[in-house]
Amino acid sequence: MIRLSDVYAARRRVSRWARRTPMEHSPGLSGVCGGDVWLKLENQQVTGSFKIRGAANKILLLSEEERDRGVVTASSGNHAQGVGYAARELGVKATVVVPERTPTVKIDAIRRYGVKLIIEGDEYMDSERLARRIEREEGKTFVSAYNDTELIMGQATVGLEMVEDAPDLDAVLVPVGGGGLVSGVASVFKQVGDTEVIGVQSKASPFMYECVKRGEIFDMPLEDSVAEGLHGGIEQGCVSFDICRELIDDWVILEEEDILAAIRYMLHEHHMLVEGAAAVGPAVIMTHPERFRDMKVGVLISGGNLSAEILRQVA
Amino acid sequence: MIRLSDVYAARRRVSRWARRTPMEHSPGLSGVCGGDVWLKLENQQVTGSFKIRGAANKILLLSEEERDRGVVTASSGNHAQGVGYAARELGVKATVVVPERTPTVKIDAIRRYGVKLIIEGDEYMDSERLARRIEREEGKTFVSAYNDTELIMGQATVGLEMVEDAPDLDAVLVPVGGGGLVSGVASVFKQVGDTEVIGVQSKASPFMYECVKRGEIFDMPLEDSVAEGLHGGIEQGCVSFDICRELIDDWVILEEEDILAAIRYMLHEHHMLVEGAAAVGPAVIMTHPERFRDMKVGVLISGGNLSAEILRQVA
Repeated sequence: MIRLSDVYAARRRVSRWARRTPMEHSPGLSGVCGGDVWLKLENQQVTGSFKIRGAANKILLLSEEERDRGVVTASSGNHAQGVGYAARELGVKATVVVPERTPTVKIDAIRRYGVKLIIEGDEYMDSERLARRIEREEGKTFVSAYNDTELIMGQATVGLEMVEDAPDLDAVLVPVGGGGLVSGVASVFKQVGDTEVIGVQSKASPFMYECVKRGEIFDMPLEDSVAEGLHGGIEQGCVSFDICRELIDDWVILEEEDILAAIRYMLHEHHMLVEGAAAVGPAVIMTHPERFRDMKVGVLISGGNLSAEILRQVA
Repeated sequence: MIRLSDVYAARRRVSRWARRTPMEHSPGLSGVCGGDVWLKLENQQVTGSFKIRGAANKILLLSEEERDRGVVTASSGNHAQGVGYAARELGVKATVVVPERTPTVKIDAIRRYGVKLIIEGDEYMDSERLARRIEREEGKTFVSAYNDTELIMGQATVGLEMVEDAPDLDAVLVPVGGGGLVSGVASVFKQVGDTEVIGVQSKASPFMYECVKRGEIFDMPLEDSVAEGLHGGIEQGCVSFDICRELIDDWVILEEEDILAAIRYMLHEHHMLVEGAAAVGPAVIMTHPERFRDMKVGVLISGGNLSAEILRQVA
């Protein structure tokens, strides 16, 4: 578990770079479930997702010498943008490794932050292995998207804002990929009150859920998903696995069509562009309305970087 | 012109209801014009547009007796939602008159705020006439979308936040419909520095521009537009006309296809849903890039309530 004092310290550290996003009431989703639903809008965060929080905290905690040597990460998505943005703002050189099949638009988006881009590997884990090698050989600091306590402290600041802006939540719905976000957020909620923490994954990539169920980290085949932000494996011994085991009270695993329906709902009801990974919270409310009747529920909308292809699919 | 002290007072008044929205750098549009472009994100405002600011200021300035009698307005769009939201939050009864051809989804959205809805009139101006009659006959206060100094003071708070968060703008691009927003924003900019205020309208409804050019308010035929928020006429003797004549330095009138292209650009480049009226600023940069080279430009993104039909068109 991440200590609250570390989360407060992270907030002081990153507040110049990460925005305090709104916690907004959703009349629509409240009506759907007969409860009181609040949305934490990290789609309105700088870089379009919460990732800037953890990346900034991590880079700000590096020593002068480490900053001079630079950072390296592996990601084709929001984490790469978070690291790229934070590194640029802090004058730190960043290298990003992305898998070969990464779409050009994503590569362009990452390149715009002025990072050094290396395209290598079939799968995400191949890219991570190369990034880890660069860490060893070039002395750059590897910034993991999930397996890093200092990064998780930054992500935890989302939870702090949620408990401050919508106190006494009965439950909170958090998207889970590598588990960095939920580890931070759950740590806050579990120390502040007795909010039920519900982790949400897709059936296409239920990695953390299956590992927690089995009690160990193992490999499994993945399917394509509109929630590509929740995609991919976790490395052995990762800290987020331990925290997820300890703090997540319940899990919901979603079908692709339910995630698509939730993206569509958020677009039409809230005029809000949310990416697949961020739509899983609303999707849980929509598929399990009776579960949240008369409850005050926090829904973490993790990001808004929806691809043009998926947008065309839902529009 | 609206005095700065009134804008500061309005801000103190409405700050519990209207959010301070971000002023965000746009690397994409900066690249397009070779300048430095900043976006004021009122699409992230409560109710999805800036309208809540003016509506809240207006209603908060009513006397106890006026509040008891309630308010009435005519609008099928963002202004109706702003008035509806503010009235509900402040416990004031609101009546909204909308034209007959208003789409059901819009009617549903307005109804959700708990207002009394009257559907009457072919055109917006017919609805406004009925609303004015209700004002006279029932003693309710008519809340105009543009012809009201107290409303404009509220809209002006957008300008105050812009000058604070991105000082020394060379120019600011402001969408103009009835002129309420630009009257407030221009008042702030003209008192604080020498920022050039550029008003933007659509060729489908260049009302204010044509009236200012001719020096009088006159009627003209309108065409359909994807920027329906800028649609419609202005009433004789309206205060926004006088302020627009005095303070707007330059005008750009846009084609429909340029507005659509800008909606598409904002969606794909910024992952942001902006409505037609709000896309006119980016559209001006995209159609006149050379005009803004080496300039620091503020672009007012007025709202994000894009209809599903237009979204399908651009996706």
